[in-house]
Amino acid sequence: MYSLEELQSICDDAIGSLGYNREPRLLYRPIEYTLEAGGKRIRPVLLLAACQMFGGRVEDALSAAMAVEVFHNFTLLHDDIMDNAPTRRGRDTVHKKWNSNIAILSGDAMVISSYDILSSSRSDKLPELLADFTLLGKGVCEGQLYDMEFENRNDVSLDEYIEMIRLKTAVLIAGAARMGAIIGGADETGKDNIYRFGTDLGLAFQIQDDLLDTYGNPETFGKEIGGDIAEGKKTFLLITALSALDESGRKKLLEELSSDRDRNDKLQRVRAIYDAAGVREKAQEAIERYYAEAIRHLDAINRPDSCKEALMTLADKLIKRDY
Amino acid sequence: MYSLEELQSICDDAIGSLGYNREPRLLYRPIEYTLEAGGKRIRPVLLLAACQMFGGRVEDALSAAMAVEVFHNFTLLHDDIMDNAPTRRGRDTVHKKWNSNIAILSGDAMVISSYDILSSSRSDKLPELLADFTLLGKGVCEGQLYDMEFENRNDVSLDEYIEMIRLKTAVLIAGAARMGAIIGGADETGKDNIYRFGTDLGLAFQIQDDLLDTYGNPETFGKEIGGDIAEGKKTFLLITALSALDESGRKKLLEELSSDRDRNDKLQRVRAIYDAAGVREKAQEAIERYYAEAIRHLDAINRPDSCKEALMTLADKLIKRDY
Repeated sequence: MYSLEELQSICDDAIGSLGYNREPRLLYRPIEYTLEAGGKRIRPVLLLAACQMFGGRVEDALSAAMAVEVFHNFTLLHDDIMDNAPTRRGRDTVHKKWNSNIAILSGDAMVISSYDILSSSRSDKLPELLADFTLLGKGVCEGQLYDMEFENRNDVSLDEYIEMIRLKTAVLIAGAARMGAIIGGADETGKDNIYRFGTDLGLAFQIQDDLLDTYGNPETFGKEIGGDIAEGKKTFLLITALSALDESGRKKLLEELSSDRDRNDKLQRVRAIYDAAGVREKAQEAIERYYAEAIRHLDAINRPDSCKEALMTLADKLIKRDY
Repeated sequence: MYSLEELQSICDDAIGSLGYNREPRLLYRPIEYTLEAGGKRIRPVLLLAACQMFGGRVEDALSAAMAVEVFHNFTLLHDDIMDNAPTRRGRDTVHKKWNSNIAILSGDAMVISSYDILSSSRSDKLPELLADFTLLGKGVCEGQLYDMEFENRNDVSLDEYIEMIRLKTAVLIAGAARMGAIIGGADETGKDNIYRFGTDLGLAFQIQDDLLDTYGNPETFGKEIGGDIAEGKKTFLLITALSALDESGRKKLLEELSSDRDRNDKLQRVRAIYDAAGVREKAQEAIERYYAEAIRHLDAINRPDSCKEALMTLADKLIKRDY
């Protein structure tokens, strides 16, 4: 049974040997650049950990894990164009370092490559894996669409927001976990429980991402703090504040958000409104609630605790974000 | 044995039932819009025709044919963003009608959908089909990259150009034909010959597209005439002219191309240089040469002529462009 650290190092090694060191460099170099930036490899590690929990061989799940990681990085690459984000993981985004056309095209090549890697697994479960992979891919696109659509609306409900982040963030995490379970030979109940584990973990993770974007430490967060506020993104914090405030408070918040104050000034002012409305605590409560639900689903899986250790540690680290 | 017209109508019907009439509309409506614009359905028809030529059932190849058509339309959608093209098939492009972000995202959803459609074929040849599909997808991305790279170079050789259009245009046509052959049960020689047929047909087709972009009839071409000259694209015509002209002729041509004259004026002036250099005839010769090669590969396939009729008619129509 591999530890979390071992699984991470297996993933890092595998990413280094994906073979993008080829021509044309302008197409493949941005892919290497994106993948070598690191990140936490949450999704492939989760996939491998789920596979081994159900008694599968980690080696058999490595292609699927790489497919998911490449796909995830593709979504970051294209999202950064759409959000016009200047930095990612402390470095220039691909569309800033090269240009938008290169970023579009390299991203396209990454989707195709992710299917290529998955197909090369030659598993007899390939049709089931492909169906799951496509499901998570569609979810991410639909979630990103809702996210963009919400930018022009001030009446987004918390339920709509949760559905959006479920699609945009949680289905990829849940899908990765279930793909690992499929390869590991899980039964339907097992696959169902790991999917729910992944979904709730994904929701907790995204709400925490919203929280860190406004309250995080710029040193460890990787992105600039305050991006969501600068762009007027509909986050858990903003939606919760809008529903907690009275009419005049709402008006004031929306005015602050649409003002043309400088970024940092705006961040401080909006934070002050959030603080007064108790938004930070509400976000922390939601994170803990979804996290507890995730663990409940993991507990329900009929496997020895020793097999669940890597998954448990991963979930824990993810929510504490100490890495 | 279905005729070409019957195969086209099978494709049109199948495209209408791909199920994009769903939420979120902003994601799926641009996909419907792109697919309903019609176009000639060359690639799916070719796939079905190749399948039936080798004795396969057209019904068994329909998923693969749709996958290829959706993928092809995805490439058009993203290429139009990259080329900043205002119209396609006589209508606004997706990024003009909606915006670039919607166009990027709908295109992404189309790639995923194309793999979904292909995977749903549940053929025992799925791994081989996936490998072929990925090969053509990578080719298109690499070809598009070279196409973009060539924009900043004036020393592109004819060989480099042919390799670029092989990747950007011909591998998709050749790959579609070979996927049909795989489903139809062709042997290795058969697959090889149909792939070469598709490649040479694709090269002839692209050179003709270059020719029509400069010399075509705006009524039937679908796009505005002169786009390649307006953007200074490296086409068969431009590369041939640059190699046929002497130093002062080359200088004059490049000056005309980079001038800020209005579109139509520039088109007339560049055309005059092309005419004097015999470029139009050279393009026509190349089209005929590649077309003859394509037919030679089709002839080499060990199947009765009656089975080849739809493919023969398709190749013929494609190069005559009477539809």
